[in-house]
Amino acid sequence: MQHNNRFFRWLPGLIIILLLSACTAHWTYTYPGPLPSWEDGAAKQQIIEFVNSVTAPNSTDYVPPSERIATFDNDGTLWSEKPTYFQLLFILDRVKSMAADHPEWQSRQPFQAVLDNDIESIKAAGAHGMLELAMATHAGSTTDEFELMVKDWLATARHPRTGQPYTSMVYQPMLELLDYLRANEFRVFIVSGAGIEFMRPWTESVYGVPPEQVVGSSIETRYEVRDGKGVIVRMPELHFIDDKDGKPVGINRFIGRRPILAVGNSDGDFQMLQWTTHGEGRRLGILIHHTDAEREWAYDRQSTEGRLDKALDAAPENGWLVIDMAKDWRAVYPFE
Amino acid sequence: MQHNNRFFRWLPGLIIILLLSACTAHWTYTYPGPLPSWEDGAAKQQIIEFVNSVTAPNSTDYVPPSERIATFDNDGTLWSEKPTYFQLLFILDRVKSMAADHPEWQSRQPFQAVLDNDIESIKAAGAHGMLELAMATHAGSTTDEFELMVKDWLATARHPRTGQPYTSMVYQPMLELLDYLRANEFRVFIVSGAGIEFMRPWTESVYGVPPEQVVGSSIETRYEVRDGKGVIVRMPELHFIDDKDGKPVGINRFIGRRPILAVGNSDGDFQMLQWTTHGEGRRLGILIHHTDAEREWAYDRQSTEGRLDKALDAAPENGWLVIDMAKDWRAVYPFE
Repeated sequence: MQHNNRFFRWLPGLIIILLLSACTAHWTYTYPGPLPSWEDGAAKQQIIEFVNSVTAPNSTDYVPPSERIATFDNDGTLWSEKPTYFQLLFILDRVKSMAADHPEWQSRQPFQAVLDNDIESIKAAGAHGMLELAMATHAGSTTDEFELMVKDWLATARHPRTGQPYTSMVYQPMLELLDYLRANEFRVFIVSGAGIEFMRPWTESVYGVPPEQVVGSSIETRYEVRDGKGVIVRMPELHFIDDKDGKPVGINRFIGRRPILAVGNSDGDFQMLQWTTHGEGRRLGILIHHTDAEREWAYDRQSTEGRLDKALDAAPENGWLVIDMAKDWRAVYPFE
Repeated sequence: MQHNNRFFRWLPGLIIILLLSACTAHWTYTYPGPLPSWEDGAAKQQIIEFVNSVTAPNSTDYVPPSERIATFDNDGTLWSEKPTYFQLLFILDRVKSMAADHPEWQSRQPFQAVLDNDIESIKAAGAHGMLELAMATHAGSTTDEFELMVKDWLATARHPRTGQPYTSMVYQPMLELLDYLRANEFRVFIVSGAGIEFMRPWTESVYGVPPEQVVGSSIETRYEVRDGKGVIVRMPELHFIDDKDGKPVGINRFIGRRPILAVGNSDGDFQMLQWTTHGEGRRLGILIHHTDAEREWAYDRQSTEGRLDKALDAAPENGWLVIDMAKDWRAVYPFE
């Protein structure tokens, strides 16, 4: 019995040791370190080094969690933007589905070009034409109705090249970066030139970014009581363009703090990166360079979408990290 | 030795039992239940019942944490607003400290009235006069400079009646309500007619509400590079008035979700409460009624600040909870 007693006295310790070993094995197997879809190179190392330097409590670059604000552009930074911005494809589909109620569109540009699938004429209509299409298709409804339109479209629309839902054409390495930052007590915001109400219906399920952490362009809205119920109505009038100079303005207005990390991919992100990295203390600006014609698209200075010219030239002197998609990313999309 | 062995075998269990007892005693002593500064009456009970009903996983009124949005007005809801709005007192002090650089103000209204401490003439200048004072004192600086001005003022200015810093004149029962909601995974926002950049410098330390969870009125801003550094400059032009119809518009723009709980104290909060409680599922609207002339101030339908007339009449038919400050609150300020 004495022998038995001794065994039982050691049993709890034994169980704990066995459990700890199992946990360690599981951990090692399940968590191969942060950013698994990033190649083990200088870019990944620089990101991890930055995060370590602002989060280590004894670091001279330490930033308290409440000030760990990171802002991400969306088109071309978190998801693809070719053959053109996905919101524009949504607008074109909306024009087609609304055309029956608008016979005048058959002979009026830029609507006629959309109905004729005449992409060149649509592009030729320029920013003014796009705005006209956006107003005609995005205004008039309540915000609740518009949210449903976006969700319905995303549920059925498919990308012309990959055949995937648009919300699947997000970058796996960026999903990992968002998770990695949140695990290090960053608060992650999207700051995009796209419509704020086009993004909010799906950013939480796709990126884990809730609606209140999305900043974007917007049209005017108005509060009304319709059929006895308070609703917000979307008006055919521009309110704010969240691009270029508008990005620091939008960040200050919505977030009220200068980010310590900003990520973009185009000249539209220049001012956001500049304002971010001009702040006191350790900061990081990142540009995603689309260099991968095989797995995604390759474009920069000449592209209509995500034109990257001035910001690419300014990267070295500002110390911005330029990600070479073809070389720095092991995978592009989650579905690969 | 056999006896000794047995004792040591039981020792860990004994220690655990003793520790648990100590924790329970500590818990009971330290946490007398939520909302300790609220009287144990119908109002407190209704708030707790609402929170329980939307958070209990098996409740038919269950709301997932991501949708537990609560919005609070500030002036008269979270802190006092007498003898007048604290931001107006800040503006008056700013006019006086800037007057040396503006000799023309000596003979120009409403500036002259401010310099003469002629409160009646200031009030007579009305909304237009206030706006002129606000623009003259709030524009021109960068956002970083303005933040410092607000912090400097709050550090030294004292309330004329209590002699307390303005940030001490917050309502203890409301601080407890904010904490109670956050403990139940609500996200708490301030939605105030006051200037967004007047509030953001102190809401985190005083209320635990970070800058990105503050919605308010704003003037236009512009991004500029000054002396080689990117800054946001405040312009003498109104951008947004976050009051009345503006509150649902501001909430939708900044938060992107309809709240399930809204708290205000004046007709300026009418539309916010209406829009909130018109939503699907269980909702709660709360009005703080200033009934306590002894510990705070008593005012409603006739007051210049926080006029509560139309919203008070609409409360019963909308099921809004009206808090009677004198009867429902055990304490008003934390310093009492």
